[in-house]
Amino acid sequence: MQKLTIWTNVAYPTEAMERLRAGIGQHALIFATQREQTVLAKSGKDENLPLADVVLGQPDVSQLMESQKIQWVQLPSAGYTAYDRNDLRRSFRSRGVLMSNSSSVYAEPCAQHLLAQMLGQARRMFDAATSQLTNHQWPYRAIREKSVLLNGQNVLLLGFGAIGRRVVELLKPFEVNIIALRRTPTGNEGVVCRPISELHQHLPWADHVANILPLSDETTKIIGAAELAKMKSSAIFYNIGRGQTVDQDALLSALRGGQIAAASLDVTDPEPLPPEHPLWTTPNCVITPHTAGGHSTEFIRVVAHFVNNLRRFEKGEALADQII
Amino acid sequence: MQKLTIWTNVAYPTEAMERLRAGIGQHALIFATQREQTVLAKSGKDENLPLADVVLGQPDVSQLMESQKIQWVQLPSAGYTAYDRNDLRRSFRSRGVLMSNSSSVYAEPCAQHLLAQMLGQARRMFDAATSQLTNHQWPYRAIREKSVLLNGQNVLLLGFGAIGRRVVELLKPFEVNIIALRRTPTGNEGVVCRPISELHQHLPWADHVANILPLSDETTKIIGAAELAKMKSSAIFYNIGRGQTVDQDALLSALRGGQIAAASLDVTDPEPLPPEHPLWTTPNCVITPHTAGGHSTEFIRVVAHFVNNLRRFEKGEALADQII
Repeated sequence: MQKLTIWTNVAYPTEAMERLRAGIGQHALIFATQREQTVLAKSGKDENLPLADVVLGQPDVSQLMESQKIQWVQLPSAGYTAYDRNDLRRSFRSRGVLMSNSSSVYAEPCAQHLLAQMLGQARRMFDAATSQLTNHQWPYRAIREKSVLLNGQNVLLLGFGAIGRRVVELLKPFEVNIIALRRTPTGNEGVVCRPISELHQHLPWADHVANILPLSDETTKIIGAAELAKMKSSAIFYNIGRGQTVDQDALLSALRGGQIAAASLDVTDPEPLPPEHPLWTTPNCVITPHTAGGHSTEFIRVVAHFVNNLRRFEKGEALADQII
Repeated sequence: MQKLTIWTNVAYPTEAMERLRAGIGQHALIFATQREQTVLAKSGKDENLPLADVVLGQPDVSQLMESQKIQWVQLPSAGYTAYDRNDLRRSFRSRGVLMSNSSSVYAEPCAQHLLAQMLGQARRMFDAATSQLTNHQWPYRAIREKSVLLNGQNVLLLGFGAIGRRVVELLKPFEVNIIALRRTPTGNEGVVCRPISELHQHLPWADHVANILPLSDETTKIIGAAELAKMKSSAIFYNIGRGQTVDQDALLSALRGGQIAAASLDVTDPEPLPPEHPLWTTPNCVITPHTAGGHSTEFIRVVAHFVNNLRRFEKGEALADQII
């Protein structure tokens, strides 16, 4: 087996880094000059990258395209907006370079986060938290009257990949009706799946509109004033995808005007959301700080995913979560 | 068919009362002199009760035992602590009087509430709410590191009836390990079920200890200092049963001392919890104001459950949720 040089710009906690060193075996590990402990770390041009056969991290795109030695790039994130480019795809395909992401690491926590948001809205957990964190009142009747059962409600999923698939599994016992929208339905989704071009047609049906879309030219502000106007006034909007897929001013107006009932947002535009931003205090808007994918074993699972793919790469087998 | 006199002390919103009137058909409805719009309303002695063949509500226990005409009591709640008495059981059984509760109405919202609590803890939703309701900071890293996946974790259910059964169904896709404890396991629970007398033996195993127990002499303060001491320091305690089943001072100490990691309490002792009570500000303690059973269609579903049982009663069929 050829000895590979593995470049990384990740800087994870000790246990994860030890597992990385153990997992790469006889291959060599070299580091970017700048590293950060987040899966979203993006590197600038790095003088060590040209030495790499394999990348674990988020290197500079133009430098990646110039790199002649590179054979495989493993992104430690599920999102890959910066790498979702035709020029990069052409460059990699023409040279047989592979790219994989870590969507299977993040499908589970993201799906559980969406369920937490949906059940949190259904059970009015933010109302109870408001009571606990402010006046210590006991709004027994008000909260009970506003609480709802999910059973029989209509859930519209915007985007359907690894996360959406898992959301459908987690929702199964709740007896909801689900329609998933994606660019190109395959018919193998195991759930009613329609092209996202039919978005306007399905919005009036939904009690819950859950946005799991990645960011691209096509999805930028895909939810705006026109889309919000098509939703039920009792509908709840969720976003665990990317903040820029929503026209945030339109969402703010829709919430303030009671055009929709509530929102649970894990992503905003920008992030961090500035302390003075009006979204923080908009009625019925529940914000989590881009934590949907996070979990205590995140870095260990990213490393395990990379090591698993490294074994496959060594044997010439198909990679998990391959995107190029 | 005999014309029945149905006494009630419930005072639900118009739609539910209209459905009640429509549902009872040719039978007569008489009201208690005092009524309240909550399923927990308890009546004192009422001059109209002696006229009743059937009761929908929570009448005075001693008056109930003296009532010679009564044939069937339908409690509009799932809990029935006040009626869980040997003298009442003896009195009713000797006269062939039936009693049913509304546990099937409340199993679904209570189970969904427990899931909301578990996912809320797993995704650290209260931390995010604290940020949103206080300083508008963006504790991205802190929350991600503390978030956990439920998969593979150990869930100990204290009590196993209609709610526990539904909790097991809702948890199925999360791949958790479950042990349920109840007074007398039947072997037909569809989940590992052991006698509650083994409580101490199973507490050290659990990552999540979910208390769904009704209140009785046997369950009063069943969770105290000794039981909390047997739990993992990473364990989370949930209570959607009754506040008096927990030694609340011991719980307060365990949370303050880090003996257990967190608690989500829907019930407290007393209720409402007074504004100055230290539990409100205890670290890692999330409180909801006894809202687990509530849902927007609650009163309509209680009425539907009663009307369904009334049809069964007319035909001499077994009642749903019969307890005597």
